[in-house]
Amino acid sequence: MPRDPDCIFCKITAGDIPSHTVYEDEDVFAFLDIGPLAEGHVLIIPRDHHSELAAMPAELCAKIASLLPRLGRAALGVTGAEGFNVLVNNGAAAGQVVGHVHWHLIPRQTRDGLGYRWNAGEYAEGRAAQVADAYKAALASAGR
Amino acid sequence: MPRDPDCIFCKITAGDIPSHTVYEDEDVFAFLDIGPLAEGHVLIIPRDHHSELAAMPAELCAKIASLLPRLGRAALGVTGAEGFNVLVNNGAAAGQVVGHVHWHLIPRQTRDGLGYRWNAGEYAEGRAAQVADAYKAALASAGR
Repeated sequence: MPRDPDCIFCKITAGDIPSHTVYEDEDVFAFLDIGPLAEGHVLIIPRDHHSELAAMPAELCAKIASLLPRLGRAALGVTGAEGFNVLVNNGAAAGQVVGHVHWHLIPRQTRDGLGYRWNAGEYAEGRAAQVADAYKAALASAGR
Repeated sequence: MPRDPDCIFCKITAGDIPSHTVYEDEDVFAFLDIGPLAEGHVLIIPRDHHSELAAMPAELCAKIASLLPRLGRAALGVTGAEGFNVLVNNGAAAGQVVGHVHWHLIPRQTRDGLGYRWNAGEYAEGRAAQVADAYKAALASAGR
């Protein structure tokens, strides 16, 4: 699925919509989010149209992620941030707005008001073992 | 850097601290977060001790990410979630608590109260181009 003619990110990688590109190669395109959570907030996307992470080829996911340490170090250097988040929202319920998989790289400073809402819970007695077993069964029956 | 004797995640991969494992291979270990944000919240880590994403070898980062589509589909199937987030906190300012790089896989439901705090801003005229140029310069001078 090389391109979706109605997809805004496909239009950006094709150059039909301008963007502030920070990196590109034959498979991957990275550019500044125009609604940044912090200065230097980057979106990293595959050139090919894939709607979401769960539907991506493993190899392409690996290719994108192989760039994260280098892009992360660049973000720290460029913005002077103390840290960064890498975030993928898979599905509307998870906050995905554009239906072309994208990885957020968000520079962070202490007490910048950003970050993930951390409402940690706990498992009832015995429940975690059940969930882990269900994962193992699902992974054993699933393709790669 | 194969193992840090003081690292709780190194103790988990070694089996010195029990965990609810969902997946493991020679390089990667995935287990349930004991303080889950949602049922089925998984942590995916390298067996080798690396303090943070920015300091990881690109190939190992790729290996971990190659598992994300499969693990994400498993999370949807196991938990009945509508979506999921993948999150890496790099550095204390970004919310990293354990100093052994870990990727969060967080199942999501609509209006579950989770997700990233989305306080989007905008660039002043001309600033985005400056930031993008700084990224390109940083990436051109950096190693892989």
